[in-house]
Amino acid sequence: MVVDKLYNLRMRAAQGGSHEQGGTHISGGERITRFSNIQQVAMYLLEKGLTHCKGRPDFMQIQLESIPESVTYVQPLERWANVERFVKEGDTFLKEGKTVAFQLLEIIGIPKKVIDRAVEIVSQYSSMRGAVLIDAHSGKRLDDRGEKGVRVSRLDWLGNDFEKWARYYHVSANSRIREALALAAKVNNHPATIAELCWSDDPDYTTGYVASRKMGYQRIENIKTYGDERGCRIFFVDGQKDIRSYINYLENQPVLITWEG
Amino acid sequence: MVVDKLYNLRMRAAQGGSHEQGGTHISGGERITRFSNIQQVAMYLLEKGLTHCKGRPDFMQIQLESIPESVTYVQPLERWANVERFVKEGDTFLKEGKTVAFQLLEIIGIPKKVIDRAVEIVSQYSSMRGAVLIDAHSGKRLDDRGEKGVRVSRLDWLGNDFEKWARYYHVSANSRIREALALAAKVNNHPATIAELCWSDDPDYTTGYVASRKMGYQRIENIKTYGDERGCRIFFVDGQKDIRSYINYLENQPVLITWEG
Ligand SMILES: Nc1ncnc2c1ncn2[C@@H]1O[C@H](COP(=O)(O)OP(=O)(O)OP(=O)(O)O)[C@@H](O)[C@H]1O
Ligand SMILES: Nc1ncnc2c1ncn2[C@@H]1O[C@H](COP(=O)(O)OP(=O)(O)OP(=O)(O)O)[C@@H](O)[C@H]1O
Ligand SMILES: [Mg+2]
Ligand SMILES: [Mg+2]
Ligand SMILES: [Mg+2]
Ligand SMILES: [Mg+2]
Repeated sequence: MVVDKLYNLRMRAAQGGSHEQGGTHISGGERITRFSNIQQVAMYLLEKGLTHCKGRPDFMQIQLESIPESVTYVQPLERWANVERFVKEGDTFLKEGKTVAFQLLEIIGIPKKVIDRAVEIVSQYSSMRGAVLIDAHSGKRLDDRGEKGVRVSRLDWLGNDFEKWARYYHVSANSRIREALALAAKVNNHPATIAELCWSDDPDYTTGYVASRKMGYQRIENIKTYGDERGCRIFFVDGQKDIRSYINYLENQPVLITWEG
Repeated sequence: MVVDKLYNLRMRAAQGGSHEQGGTHISGGERITRFSNIQQVAMYLLEKGLTHCKGRPDFMQIQLESIPESVTYVQPLERWANVERFVKEGDTFLKEGKTVAFQLLEIIGIPKKVIDRAVEIVSQYSSMRGAVLIDAHSGKRLDDRGEKGVRVSRLDWLGNDFEKWARYYHVSANSRIREALALAAKVNNHPATIAELCWSDDPDYTTGYVASRKMGYQRIENIKTYGDERGCRIFFVDGQKDIRSYINYLENQPVLITWEG
């Protein structure tokens, strides 16, 4: 009997050489699949990287690896809100998205000076493909990955649970939301994560989010200027926890997001 | 104007972990394509690795990189012979394939003790994904790549020149022959190559070849026992030549095989 294993597929694409050679990060993606679906998922990732709004890559790597069956099943973050509703009057934004994001982080309990320091740290890098880990108390960076950051991998939605979720919440079932929700669920499932702040590096996508176990997933429009190619993913972390095992969870623990409805 | 660049695609697949982790090499492949054809070529390589007779891989990497337009155009080796005709009477092989291969190498001018030494060197490794470079005079190994060997990359046939070639020579236009002929043409185009010896690591494929500029491409059936998973690629090299620039040619110089008919 051939056991139908699970496979992780990850893609990264860059322009001006590979990431290692100092190329600009264009696109990344990670999916989990059974053997029978590898081709389809690989095609999705290939197309994602080749047709990205950040530009045409001249380097791409797609890696397949079988992964252990010891999967952690995680629910999407419980609350889902489109903060837009609270900050927009008609077509006018009453507050800038970043201001809203920072306020939400403060409500979660991240000191203002830690938020400022974190944003200062990520703004050093013109192009990152991973996240920066920040001590939620001291504002110090906890990983030593420099411009690379820590890329969360081995995560996906189970079956068509995302489509069911999206139908239930009347959210368009697009891959951006699919991927962001899965990432936020995996990251915030770990007790060391206190909160996550994200905005895309895609110049044409100006929506970001703040996520935490307490507050759920708070989608924030207008978080950056249209055309800006700098993105960010900051994980505010409890520095008391074992950081090596935390990074190992982020990179290696297979996580499938399930939603029953 | 978008210049339609050339892209190199390479694939490698292994079982029992990645090659770096000591996994067994399952499959490899390299192709050159224009942007518009990347998806199709990637699908070919993916399928090649996933359905290989050596077994189902649990690791695979597909890498895309744009390559310089400074392409070397190379003709296929001039003579093409199926040595079978000289060593088979009806259904009976008069000589073992390896004996024939070694005799051909001696005719090309490789001393018997160098051949023996080379075969001894490759037989140390249970699974290689590249070639071993042997000094044609001393029998010493010239590369320092251990079990990995030197993998020739950035090579392909131009357009449908292979199909034209195959039609002309009444050879079945299959991908095995396509890939072997391209490799032999690139390798033997370099003045440092004196001869090449190959048999597949695929257990179900018992045909190999000897190639050289002088003698062309000599296909040899029955070169190994059916079921044997050890393959070999040995480049007999003029040790007087600059080996670093030779390896750079093998790995990095884009070569397209052309055939006018
Ligand atoms: N899986 C991940 N793990 C950690 N950080 C990530 C991950 N995915 C994205 N990021 C970070 O968040 C930023 C914005 O995410 P975004 O999804 O736009 O980019 P991407 O996933 O790298 O590529 P793509 O735009 O093709 O999805 C990235 O630049 C990267 O720094
Ligand atoms: N491009 C290459 N450069 C150098 N050596 C190669 C190359 N391709 C194959 N070889 C060597 O020749 C041996 C036999 O070749 P073969 O074509 O059967 O294997 P492969 O190319 O690695 O994978 P596949 O069987 O999928 O084509 C391989 O095990 C490898 O050591
Ligand atoms: Mg993404
Ligand atoms: Mg992006
Ligand atoms: Mg091959
Ligand atoms: Mg093989």
